[in-house]
Amino acid sequence: MENSPQQPNWLQESPAQPSLTHRERALEHQDQLTKPPGSLGELEALAVQLAAIQNSHNPAAEPAHIALFAADHGITAEGVSPIDPVVTQQMMTNFVNGGAAISVMARELGCELEVIDVGSRWPGELPQPILDRRIAPGTANMRREAAMSPEQFLAALEAGREAAERAQQSGVKLFIAGEMGIGNTSAAAALAAALLEAPAAGLVGPGTGLQGPALRHKEEVIEAALSFHRHELGSPGALANPWEAGRRVGGLEICAMAGAYLRCAQLGIAVLLDGYISGSAALLAERLAPGTKENMLLGHCSAEPGHRRVVSALGLSPILSLGMRLGEGSGAATALPLLRMACAIHNNMATFAQAGVTQGDNHQ
Amino acid sequence: MENSPQQPNWLQESPAQPSLTHRERALEHQDQLTKPPGSLGELEALAVQLAAIQNSHNPAAEPAHIALFAADHGITAEGVSPIDPVVTQQMMTNFVNGGAAISVMARELGCELEVIDVGSRWPGELPQPILDRRIAPGTANMRREAAMSPEQFLAALEAGREAAERAQQSGVKLFIAGEMGIGNTSAAAALAAALLEAPAAGLVGPGTGLQGPALRHKEEVIEAALSFHRHELGSPGALANPWEAGRRVGGLEICAMAGAYLRCAQLGIAVLLDGYISGSAALLAERLAPGTKENMLLGHCSAEPGHRRVVSALGLSPILSLGMRLGEGSGAATALPLLRMACAIHNNMATFAQAGVTQGDNHQ
Repeated sequence: MENSPQQPNWLQESPAQPSLTHRERALEHQDQLTKPPGSLGELEALAVQLAAIQNSHNPAAEPAHIALFAADHGITAEGVSPIDPVVTQQMMTNFVNGGAAISVMARELGCELEVIDVGSRWPGELPQPILDRRIAPGTANMRREAAMSPEQFLAALEAGREAAERAQQSGVKLFIAGEMGIGNTSAAAALAAALLEAPAAGLVGPGTGLQGPALRHKEEVIEAALSFHRHELGSPGALANPWEAGRRVGGLEICAMAGAYLRCAQLGIAVLLDGYISGSAALLAERLAPGTKENMLLGHCSAEPGHRRVVSALGLSPILSLGMRLGEGSGAATALPLLRMACAIHNNMATFAQAGVTQGDNHQ
Repeated sequence: MENSPQQPNWLQESPAQPSLTHRERALEHQDQLTKPPGSLGELEALAVQLAAIQNSHNPAAEPAHIALFAADHGITAEGVSPIDPVVTQQMMTNFVNGGAAISVMARELGCELEVIDVGSRWPGELPQPILDRRIAPGTANMRREAAMSPEQFLAALEAGREAAERAQQSGVKLFIAGEMGIGNTSAAAALAAALLEAPAAGLVGPGTGLQGPALRHKEEVIEAALSFHRHELGSPGALANPWEAGRRVGGLEICAMAGAYLRCAQLGIAVLLDGYISGSAALLAERLAPGTKENMLLGHCSAEPGHRRVVSALGLSPILSLGMRLGEGSGAATALPLLRMACAIHNNMATFAQAGVTQGDNHQ
C-alpha cells in the first residue's frame, strides 16, 4: 500500500490448518454408521469438513452467529444502482426491528443477529442495538479516487476482527457474515475483477435487477474504475495486490467481512459463506492470508452471475442452489439447518455394532 | 385387475386442487416484502406453492409428520441385493431405538416419526412402538408371480390411507413418507419401468452399491419380471395400468406410500417426496388418481439414476441435490427446514409499507 500504515500484528498470524487426523477419523466414523457408506452424500462431507476445521470428534454448527455489516458506497454517484442509497439506512432499521429476511431467518434459526454499521451515511446517532463502528460516511467514489485510505481499509478489517472475536468469546462454532449496502454488488464485482485480473463484464451482474443499457453502464463504470486505479498504480498487475484492491475498489462492509473471515480462520472458527458480496470478501481474505479458505464452507450459489467465478477461484462448492440473490447473509442462513443436520447425524447415529445391524454395502 | 375386489369408496375421491386464488395472493404478497422481487428464489416459490396447496394465506410446514413404511421383497430370492433381508428387521429396531439416520433427523426437526410394518418377515410380535399393519411376510417373488394379490394391493393402499388420516387428525400440515425394505430399489425400478413403459436398464441403479455384473444381473431380473407379467397379461401395454403394475411388480411399503400420497392429496395435505422409492410410489399414486402430483413437493434429487426420470415424468423439481441415496425419508427430512424457512419468510417479513423502506427493484 502507498503510504502504508503499520500493519497490526494480528494480520500477520497464519490461518489455522484443518486437522488431517480429525478428517480421517471422521471419515472412518461415517463408515461405521448404520447406513450404506456415502449414502448421505454431501451431509457426510460437511460433517467431516467441520470436524477437521474444528479439530474435534464432534463437529458442531451451533451456536452460530450472524454478523451483518452495513456501509454505503461512493460509486452510487455514478448511477450504478436504481435504488436510493437511503435504503441502506432504512434496511438497517428493518434488520433490528425484525422485519427483514435475515431477521426472520435468525429468529427461525435461534441465532444471534448482530448489525454493525462500518460506514453508512446515517446522519446522527445510530438506533440501538446497531453497533457503531462507522469508519466513514460511505466509501469515496472509486471511479475517481481510492474508495478508502489505507487507514480506513485497516479499520474495516479491524471491525471484522472484532466481530470474529466477539463470536469466539460467545463460544460460536460457525460464523456467518451478511451485508447491506446500496451499490455493493458494484464494489464486489470491481474487487473480484481486480483480484482475478479479469474483465468486469463477466463479473458484473444485475444486482438489484438492472437490465440492458443500465447493466452495460454499470459494467462501463466498473471497467473505468479499474483502469483508473491500474493507471494510478503504474502497472496493470499491481491492482491484483489485495492490499491495493481492497482499499481502492472494495467497500467498507466487504473489507470488514474479509477481516472477520480472516480472524475466524486464525481462531479455527468455521465460516459459512453467503453470496456474491461474501464471496468477493472471502477472495480478498484468502489473498490477504493464503489458507483462509480452508476454514470456509459455501452456503449457496447466488443467481448473481459473477459468484460462480469467484467461488470457483476459491475451490468451493455450494450446499444450496436455490436461485437466491438477496445478500444479508440469507443464503448462508438457509444452509445452516443442513449443517446442523449433518452434525446431528455424525454425532448421534448408531454404529452397526451398537445397533446390531448386519454390515454390508447397504441396507436397501 | 384380474379378479378385482370391489374398490373402496375413498379411492374414487378426487385429489384436491391447489387454490389459484391463494397462489396469486401469495405471489402478490411476496412482492410487497422488503427484498427485491424474486431475490429469495426457490424459497419464494415454495411458500407460494404451499399457500396454494393448503388453501391458506399462511403457508405452514409444521407440524410435519414422517410415516416410515417397512416391508420385505420376494425378489431378493433372485440375488438382486447384496444385503441380507434380515436387515429390514434390524433397521426397524434401529428406527424405533433412535439410532438410524431418519430417527436422528426426526429428533433434530422435532417431528413425529411413525414406523409402520406393512409386510416385513418379522417372525412374531413386533416391538413397541412399531405399528403392526402386516399384510404378508414380504411380497411374492415378482420374477415368478404377482408380488401381491389384488386384496393385498388394496390393503397396502389402505395402510397408507390410515397414516394420512392419522396425520390429518393431528393437524399435520406436511406429510413425509419414508421406507425400509431390502430389495425395494428393485421394486421401485420395476414399477417405474412398468408405468413409464421404459426399459429397466435406465431405471435400475446401484441401490445398496451394486456394480458391474451384479448390477447387470439386477437389470436382467427386473427385465425378466416385466416380460413375465406383460406376457401373463397378454398385451405389452397392459402393465402400464397402475392397478396391474402396483400389485404385480410393486412393494407393500411402496403401495402404502402411494396410498398415503393419494389420501393426503384428497385431504389437501402437502406431501414432501423423498428419493427413488418415494418417487415411484408418487408416480403410482398419480397414475391411480391423476392430479395427486399437484399436492407434491420434491425434497431432493437422489443419486439413484432412475430418480431423475421418475420425477421428470411427474414434472417435479428437487429442492436439494446433495448426492443422497439412503431412503428412509432422509432426503425429504433434510429439505424440511428449507420449507419452514420459506414459510417463516412469507408469514413474518415486513412489507415495504410496514417497514418504511423505499420500494425499488432492489435494495442492494
